[in-house]
Amino acid sequence: MVTKILWINPIGSDIFDVPIKDNLNSVKYEDTIIDVISFKKGPKHLEYQFYEALMGIEILKAVKIAEIRDYDAAIIGCFYDPFLSESREISNIVVTAPAESSVAMAISLGHKFSIIVGRKKWIPQMEENISKYGLRDRFASFRSINMGVLDFQLNREETEKRLMEAGMAAINEDGAEVLILGCTVEFGFYKKMQKKLGVPVIDATIAPLKYAEFLVNLKNMTNLSHSKIGKYEPPPEKEIKDWNLEEYFGIDWK
Amino acid sequence: MVTKILWINPIGSDIFDVPIKDNLNSVKYEDTIIDVISFKKGPKHLEYQFYEALMGIEILKAVKIAEIRDYDAAIIGCFYDPFLSESREISNIVVTAPAESSVAMAISLGHKFSIIVGRKKWIPQMEENISKYGLRDRFASFRSINMGVLDFQLNREETEKRLMEAGMAAINEDGAEVLILGCTVEFGFYKKMQKKLGVPVIDATIAPLKYAEFLVNLKNMTNLSHSKIGKYEPPPEKEIKDWNLEEYFGIDWK
Amino acid sequence: MVTKILWINPIGSDIFDVPIKDNLNSVKYEDTIIDVISFKKGPKHLEYQFYEALMGIEILKAVKIAEIRDYDAAIIGCFYDPFLSESREISNIVVTAPAESSVAMAISLGHKFSIIVGRKKWIPQMEENISKYGLRDRFASFRSINMGVLDFQLNREETEKRLMEAGMAAINEDGAEVLILGCTVEFGFYKKMQKKLGVPVIDATIAPLKYAEFLVNLKNMTNLSHSKIGKYEPPPEKEIKDWNLEEYFGIDWK
Amino acid sequence: MVTKILWINPIGSDIFDVPIKDNLNSVKYEDTIIDVISFKKGPKHLEYQFYEALMGIEILKAVKIAEIRDYDAAIIGCFYDPFLSESREISNIVVTAPAESSVAMAISLGHKFSIIVGRKKWIPQMEENISKYGLRDRFASFRSINMGVLDFQLNREETEKRLMEAGMAAINEDGAEVLILGCTVEFGFYKKMQKKLGVPVIDATIAPLKYAEFLVNLKNMTNLSHSKIGKYEPPPEKEIKDWNLEEYFGIDWK
Amino acid sequence: MVTKILWINPIGSDIFDVPIKDNLNSVKYEDTIIDVISFKKGPKHLEYQFYEALMGIEILKAVKIAEIRDYDAAIIGCFYDPFLSESREISNIVVTAPAESSVAMAISLGHKFSIIVGRKKWIPQMEENISKYGLRDRFASFRSINMGVLDFQLNREETEKRLMEAGMAAINEDGAEVLILGCTVEFGFYKKMQKKLGVPVIDATIAPLKYAEFLVNLKNMTNLSHSKIGKYEPPPEKEIKDWNLEEYFGIDWK
Amino acid sequence: MVTKILWINPIGSDIFDVPIKDNLNSVKYEDTIIDVISFKKGPKHLEYQFYEALMGIEILKAVKIAEIRDYDAAIIGCFYDPFLSESREISNIVVTAPAESSVAMAISLGHKFSIIVGRKKWIPQMEENISKYGLRDRFASFRSINMGVLDFQLNREETEKRLMEAGMAAINEDGAEVLILGCTVEFGFYKKMQKKLGVPVIDATIAPLKYAEFLVNLKNMTNLSHSKIGKYEPPPEKEIKDWNLEEYFGIDWK
Repeated sequence: MVTKILWINPIGSDIFDVPIKDNLNSVKYEDTIIDVISFKKGPKHLEYQFYEALMGIEILKAVKIAEIRDYDAAIIGCFYDPFLSESREISNIVVTAPAESSVAMAISLGHKFSIIVGRKKWIPQMEENISKYGLRDRFASFRSINMGVLDFQLNREETEKRLMEAGMAAINEDGAEVLILGCTVEFGFYKKMQKKLGVPVIDATIAPLKYAEFLVNLKNMTNLSHSKIGKYEPPPEKEIKDWNLEEYFGIDWK
Repeated sequence: MVTKILWINPIGSDIFDVPIKDNLNSVKYEDTIIDVISFKKGPKHLEYQFYEALMGIEILKAVKIAEIRDYDAAIIGCFYDPFLSESREISNIVVTAPAESSVAMAISLGHKFSIIVGRKKWIPQMEENISKYGLRDRFASFRSINMGVLDFQLNREETEKRLMEAGMAAINEDGAEVLILGCTVEFGFYKKMQKKLGVPVIDATIAPLKYAEFLVNLKNMTNLSHSKIGKYEPPPEKEIKDWNLEEYFGIDWK
Repeated sequence: MVTKILWINPIGSDIFDVPIKDNLNSVKYEDTIIDVISFKKGPKHLEYQFYEALMGIEILKAVKIAEIRDYDAAIIGCFYDPFLSESREISNIVVTAPAESSVAMAISLGHKFSIIVGRKKWIPQMEENISKYGLRDRFASFRSINMGVLDFQLNREETEKRLMEAGMAAINEDGAEVLILGCTVEFGFYKKMQKKLGVPVIDATIAPLKYAEFLVNLKNMTNLSHSKIGKYEPPPEKEIKDWNLEEYFGIDWK
Repeated sequence: MVTKILWINPIGSDIFDVPIKDNLNSVKYEDTIIDVISFKKGPKHLEYQFYEALMGIEILKAVKIAEIRDYDAAIIGCFYDPFLSESREISNIVVTAPAESSVAMAISLGHKFSIIVGRKKWIPQMEENISKYGLRDRFASFRSINMGVLDFQLNREETEKRLMEAGMAAINEDGAEVLILGCTVEFGFYKKMQKKLGVPVIDATIAPLKYAEFLVNLKNMTNLSHSKIGKYEPPPEKEIKDWNLEEYFGIDWK
Repeated sequence: MVTKILWINPIGSDIFDVPIKDNLNSVKYEDTIIDVISFKKGPKHLEYQFYEALMGIEILKAVKIAEIRDYDAAIIGCFYDPFLSESREISNIVVTAPAESSVAMAISLGHKFSIIVGRKKWIPQMEENISKYGLRDRFASFRSINMGVLDFQLNREETEKRLMEAGMAAINEDGAEVLILGCTVEFGFYKKMQKKLGVPVIDATIAPLKYAEFLVNLKNMTNLSHSKIGKYEPPPEKEIKDWNLEEYFGIDWK
Repeated sequence: MVTKILWINPIGSDIFDVPIKDNLNSVKYEDTIIDVISFKKGPKHLEYQFYEALMGIEILKAVKIAEIRDYDAAIIGCFYDPFLSESREISNIVVTAPAESSVAMAISLGHKFSIIVGRKKWIPQMEENISKYGLRDRFASFRSINMGVLDFQLNREETEKRLMEAGMAAINEDGAEVLILGCTVEFGFYKKMQKKLGVPVIDATIAPLKYAEFLVNLKNMTNLSHSKIGKYEPPPEKEIKDWNLEEYFGIDWK
């Protein structure tokens, strides 16, 4: 059965669209079809909470479009998992994101995991997410390599060197048995790290793809999907119509 | 010294503007000036995460405008505290919101506090906030009265009756010594509850006002304010200019 | 690519082998091949820790045999996840078990999950597992239906009735948005429950199968697998040989 | 409206009375009147739990006297917050203390806070307080500068140097975004630290004063005050009379 | 080897001295000698934090006297464990108290324990102690029987009836496998409860006695005793002399 | 009253039997009789979870034999506390083990404790045990000295040197006030460490012996023992007979 997945790069730049798509295609199930989109306008990375907020409506629109166009899953391609919960609230398809997917794997891969981030700025919000996902006790540490999102792919040798050092430190000093690369733009490094460091290294693009495939298959086979009571209970269609929200915010509700 | 505070009702309706303003004016410091705004377009309540997301940019715009127009503080008037963290990231004024302010008071008012919400739907996100603010161990329970935001002021007698019952149950069964009313539209009830139930009852409009006055005074006297490293580190102005974010999103950055 | 999975019913009885195999076959990927085994001798259920301990060596032998016979994954078919950690320590294949797999799914399916158990006796050990997996904060409650493992399939109508009641109570009183059936022999009920209760219901046989398929595919595609440092670091072969452990305990180490 | 506040230096020495009063007067509201008292007999600092215990009755007497003499609030001027809870139990005025007040501010000023203490000896009890106040998850670290209470104001240059170093380390190594000076006698340093280190620095004398003013205003405006059920439920006057406790312990109950 | 233990009833009444001594004598080691003291003046129970505070100096004096008179251990006979930490700070003998001793036993007697208290008022402080001792995760519940300290021994039948009911509820509804009687004056009931309820019931007088005997024997055999660094680091003798603390507070330091 | 205790060295080697027995005899109560056994076959240490699993049935057999032969207590002599819970489930005698016993002492000896282990490999499982026992908040750190179980007694000078260094580091850097030696084969070092480092050092052989004596005495005097509901509820004898478990596994049930 074909699985259609939409990867959303929630930024106003398409420079990562092709390499991420290539990357995803190399690890997908054969009958998975992946499309990658990004936006015309917007910040070129989401290091700041403000930038995330700016892209909120665009991300939600994209998720709704994915639903309308019969995608089985949408992936929000940023390790902050921005608007993941909102996306599940308003759609009936599978929605995943890097951080949640990574920890859902890490849980069975080793005792404790560390997350290697670009800049220290990212840590508070990611730490809040770890707590929100409930996994604080399995979390070993954050390690920062002092690079911004847009630096990772510029001087790949330097990036690799720093990732290796940070990974080594996490293993030796913090008790990490599993490493997570805490940014989707840290793609392309996990294989070498895994080989050299001898521990599983979770790539932030691969994790949400494979977890999405997993959840879609689960849904197809067992009808299991995001709960629609409580946290993901959707807003009533009547309100959305009555209040003209579709028109005002340019969202195609159905 | 005059303190100018902007209360933002982050919804597409002005029906609560006047009563909330009256309410706030009755408890403010003499030299505090309060303005209340709401938006032209948008959902009429924020019970759903989707609705919050829709109002994100509007809230942030309003905070920036408050800063430009020399307000000392902005208050985001919804108990989910939507975009509180983002607002602090992008501005240099005091920003408060109901949930955080309420717990910063509750901490010294009694051993444990309960939050009385309208609908069960609200609980997961509010519970995540309690954890984020770090106060899970001081938290007794949520109690729901099965009313939506727009119901609270319609049949005030019924609302009062249910609030009393829920408060009583929280005290007798959950060990609450302090009650928090978990919605800004639950205004107008705390006094009677306080009197009848014999415990402090925190009103979700009063809490962020008084906490804002407190933080503004603290800033004026000691220069103490939201930290600008880490979580609230602002995005670089250069990026905002280079990427045309002001224009695209209609935000006045300075 | 064909995926070979060995399901181990860690009890001295084959009565569940066929129905569980049928159940698994109905939800597997097309190119997954599933074998189900149980043991000649041993307790007929594992409700007691003592019974688990008795089956320890048998389980580990079976995992080693699975590895030698080129299975991609072994599943330990008991919701206590007995000897899961030990199995990963001594083998290089994927090993999963119901509780860990269920929570790795539940994490993305809703805010909080409840586990419906047969007898109260099971709760302490399962609670310890939830803590060990790190997910205490996402956990809503245990609900017991006062039935032993061997009762579930005897009077299926009664079982279904009690599961429904327990599920309803977990949803309405404990805040569960996701239900987990806390015993592999609670198979065959999740579909109806899901339909009637309107929330995802995780079946304890399906969860570890799908999670195993997921991890095997992940390993095939990215080489990601259980970390071999720290918790799952294997014992040195030399010790095993020198101490005659293979012979003494009847384990085929390689 | 005039607010009368009594600052209690709970030691047997008046050497800090004047400088602390000056310090407080420089940051108070205009219509706040502050009196500072200390005791004739007793230890000259409270670094040891034993010393605290010795001052217990004196502190409580002073709080009762404050109540009788129409003070609006009493402040217990030691970062261990000694007898804070007891004071609230027996009086109807606002009572604050440095540690609780500091964390009630820190909660909104940044993601995590560190506390800079004089000696390591202080840490266990302060850590217990952080837990008691419920804020362990927002707490980054303790940093000790190896000075006793009586050393801070002797060689102020040395003190400042060490505070700067400790603050820097807390920021760079422990992830602190807010600093708290963990002793009332560390007064007079926060401004320079704040300027140099670029993060909010909470002074342990200013925090409980401003928080007291805040709570008094809150009480005047909304009648909100320390809950009188549970933790702060007062002892029955009849017992106190019947058992001659006033006479025996020299406490003026009313 | 003879072990001399001083039981301190930290109240201004000797009515419980004889029955508690009889109770203790019935379970002690043969070569343990127990003395029981109480005070001339003071509250007749310690239900309020204020009452505890009043007895602080008396308790500490008694512990110092015990040390001087060659007692091996002192026991502070109140389930709030008042001044336990202070007592260890200033003495070199073993000091125990009911709550800490009870949980140090409960930890190995079953999965979770409940504490049966007299009045709800007691709960907040006891809950803080459970957290301080680190055992929150092993704690099932408090159950109150709505009786004050002085009621327990008045109508023993009624007391027993309520204890039985509370214990039953803790077992059936809260998951308790072990019960703790949360007041030293709840003595004389554990045996019957244990028999009827079929779970271990820890008596608050017996626990600290047996734990004291245990720690004294441990000290005699291995020199292991309360650590004298950090939390229990004693104040310097020089300060105590220089500041005349012995004279002022009537404490015999040596 | 004579107390008979069986120490089980759960390994296939008797080399530690005599020195451990000597060690225990030097600290026991006079009327305690200690027997030490080990097994003919099996791994010579239990550093791996696999090795523990291999010894499971042997350990349980030994506990049952101890019960049949009227021992008052059995001690499982490995710091992983292997099969402690299972042993309590199937027997009616006191069963203790090093880790649980050590923390039940440490709780009253100082604020925080550190555990000095041989190899890092041991940490994850021990950390899980600390959490299971509920004492994570009182736990300071693990410190590893990079030695295997079989190395400790080979070059005792080197072992001592490393233990001292690790202990010092735990005290100075991690805030430990109490040290625990995290392996039964680290015997013979605690006295010197205690003297030199000035903090209590808990020996992993002495702790479970003294705690066993304590629990046996408690049981003799008060009938208090491991709860037989919930976690330690024993399997029904009927099942054991019907399923031939005694014969199959060579266990003498009674």
